[in-house]
Amino acid sequence: MSETERLIESVKELLGGGRDERLAALLEDAHAADVASIIRELAPLDQIHVFRLLSAEHAGAVLSELDDSTARELLQALDETEVTRVLGRMPAERVVETLEELPKEESDKILELMEEEKSEEVQELLTYGKGTAGRLMSSDFVAVHEGASVGEAIEHIRKSKSGDDAFYLYVVDGHDHLVGLVPLHRLLTADPAASIHEIRTEEVPSVTVDTDQEEVARLVQRYDLLQVPVVDANRRLLGSISVDDIIDVIQKEATEDIQRLAGVAGDETVLDPPRAVFPRRLVWLLINLATAILASSVVGLFESSIQTLAVLAVFMPIVASMGGIGTTQTATVVVRGLALGDLTPGVAGRVLLKELRLGLTTGAANGLVIAAIAYVWKGQLLLSLILGIALVLNMLVAAVFGTLVPIALKAFRIDPAIASSVIITTFTDVFGFFSFLGLATLLMKFLL
Amino acid sequence: MSETERLIESVKELLGGGRDERLAALLEDAHAADVASIIRELAPLDQIHVFRLLSAEHAGAVLSELDDSTARELLQALDETEVTRVLGRMPAERVVETLEELPKEESDKILELMEEEKSEEVQELLTYGKGTAGRLMSSDFVAVHEGASVGEAIEHIRKSKSGDDAFYLYVVDGHDHLVGLVPLHRLLTADPAASIHEIRTEEVPSVTVDTDQEEVARLVQRYDLLQVPVVDANRRLLGSISVDDIIDVIQKEATEDIQRLAGVAGDETVLDPPRAVFPRRLVWLLINLATAILASSVVGLFESSIQTLAVLAVFMPIVASMGGIGTTQTATVVVRGLALGDLTPGVAGRVLLKELRLGLTTGAANGLVIAAIAYVWKGQLLLSLILGIALVLNMLVAAVFGTLVPIALKAFRIDPAIASSVIITTFTDVFGFFSFLGLATLLMKFLL
Repeated sequence: MSETERLIESVKELLGGGRDERLAALLEDAHAADVASIIRELAPLDQIHVFRLLSAEHAGAVLSELDDSTARELLQALDETEVTRVLGRMPAERVVETLEELPKEESDKILELMEEEKSEEVQELLTYGKGTAGRLMSSDFVAVHEGASVGEAIEHIRKSKSGDDAFYLYVVDGHDHLVGLVPLHRLLTADPAASIHEIRTEEVPSVTVDTDQEEVARLVQRYDLLQVPVVDANRRLLGSISVDDIIDVIQKEATEDIQRLAGVAGDETVLDPPRAVFPRRLVWLLINLATAILASSVVGLFESSIQTLAVLAVFMPIVASMGGIGTTQTATVVVRGLALGDLTPGVAGRVLLKELRLGLTTGAANGLVIAAIAYVWKGQLLLSLILGIALVLNMLVAAVFGTLVPIALKAFRIDPAIASSVIITTFTDVFGFFSFLGLATLLMKFLL
Repeated sequence: MSETERLIESVKELLGGGRDERLAALLEDAHAADVASIIRELAPLDQIHVFRLLSAEHAGAVLSELDDSTARELLQALDETEVTRVLGRMPAERVVETLEELPKEESDKILELMEEEKSEEVQELLTYGKGTAGRLMSSDFVAVHEGASVGEAIEHIRKSKSGDDAFYLYVVDGHDHLVGLVPLHRLLTADPAASIHEIRTEEVPSVTVDTDQEEVARLVQRYDLLQVPVVDANRRLLGSISVDDIIDVIQKEATEDIQRLAGVAGDETVLDPPRAVFPRRLVWLLINLATAILASSVVGLFESSIQTLAVLAVFMPIVASMGGIGTTQTATVVVRGLALGDLTPGVAGRVLLKELRLGLTTGAANGLVIAAIAYVWKGQLLLSLILGIALVLNMLVAAVFGTLVPIALKAFRIDPAIASSVIITTFTDVFGFFSFLGLATLLMKFLL
């Protein structure tokens, strides 16, 4: 990172001194990812200034590396001809990614201004649904007919404009159906007279254009793939997806899980404008408000007990907080297990049993500790025992709901991560208040 | 997945019928990742039975694909000679991964039984710290002297035992120093008489043996690498790390963040034995108990106010719950932003400002709603206003702590993810109870 920091310092210095020529040279030599990092740290006007100093090709690469909100702001500050010039140099699948971030009218305008061939290519990709393999695939792959010889295949690769990023040669039949692949390493070491048909790997994991990108990611991880060919419904080869795009998908999925578990939309980034974030956070806060009112109303049922014995209110936060963390621990491990594919139906029973044992043992340990502390603090033995017992019960409830709710959501094809603290902890809050205040009310005459 | 499910069904059937020969044939044809999935779903004795049916080579591959706890149990059920036979067929870096999971005495015993050459290779990798590039690197790469011609390089590759997974030819000088690389694609399309020196890429991102694996992952993501060469302190080429290992690192990091935010150790999997999980969950539960007692003691300060006006206790869960979710939302976005490298020091101020604006606006919106609901419910205007105001203040506090605590932890080189709900929500709980109950106590004479 210190390398990037030094770059940022140099850029700021050159910007301050108005030395555009040196600045342009410096930026052109830097990696697009580094230039993107620099741009994010600059003030909006400087961002535009720096971006305009880039060659169209480099600008396109930088644009692909920028986070969505910075890219959007930058594009909206440039005029459409400038944007079109940059997008014209980007691969079609990157253009699609960029256009997705812009308002419809603006992206339509840009598509009109773009060269016809490129515009058509982009519009074709746009016909595939968001989040599908079709949207991610690149047309930058090399394929050869199965009847070719190794020597002919090498000649074909030489003539194609595929670059250093091609690692596989795809093999197709006369109707462009994918029928195999040959890693370049094998091609390099094969006899030039050998036939491609002989040396190809026949069973190639592939996806169709409408496969969900998360499914593609699972395939890549499961079989350690570097590139996944994308075919249409008739198994005709249309494109390929490379592992670096899959890493982005994996990171997005992880972000989604982390954020949803916390009651955040799932794709919020630190620099998103507050007015875009506001409605999305508000939804979860309002849902939480509703569940909190539910918990409050349970407390309301016991208002007269609290009036009689105010110390009950003092212990309430402990019951709620411990139930909350218990549920969160369980739900988090379960949600992540589902996401990674570790928690399959066949092992669900074992997982529930594990969580119940943990709920019982950790509940007992914490129940003992809190009963002892409460007794020392307030000197009321029965009340301390009630608190301890309520805590054990609450941890068991946490284990059950924390395990079963995410699994059930997944079974109904709902993202289990929304079984977040917000939703599940309502159960433990309600149950915890009910058991603690309920037991205390039942035994009230012994408590006074 | 339905493919795997069908496989599992077949395996169970063949197991039940005792048809080991057919079962062995079926397993041998299946991908190691699929066999691993099957094994996880079986009862322990069947797991061992199935594993013993695999050829040593396939068994090694399957072992690499198994989750840690299943692998450990399986290995401990086999005798050391069997384990050694399987490990003997695995690449050294995979053997290291496996041995890490076993008790020291057992792994020492296995190392002794292993062929000397392999054992030495493994022990050398074990000298590198856990979680470093040295531990991850494979010695399965091809390098050629910079003075070679393209034709000689191809001949060298042909003679080496590098497989289909080699995509780069590394270029070294006379002292094995890494001085560049050539993608196989370029080698394939170059003139055989050309010199490697001419066509190599000189600037190769590389890491040293002691680079942290998370740093390697950042490099791979930033520059879209497929393979990272690993060098020693003198830039001598020792190995290479491939992107599929990096994907595992990325997933582990994400799991760690997700779990730590929820007060779980960071590497718990759904099938970990309860007795191993118990102490690790208990730690966080006890920390949470301590912070909950802190919050309780704040409530305790106002016990007499609650005695006078028990309805205060009814609203307490709302204050605590809203503060909790507000902090969790902010902290989660911030922690993830830090992990992804989006939240750099240069933008920290903007992020705090954003969170403050969000805290104010969402706080005001929720404050209005809850004040209105509380008024309708209990008919006490002043109390409803106090509740609304306490909520706004609490959301602002949530914004400040949720943003600054993770950033501060990161600055002190502590994992920001442990700024979990457990820790930060203490601040909002304490502050929330204090402001709500405090305001009510101050204005008590108007409330009665």
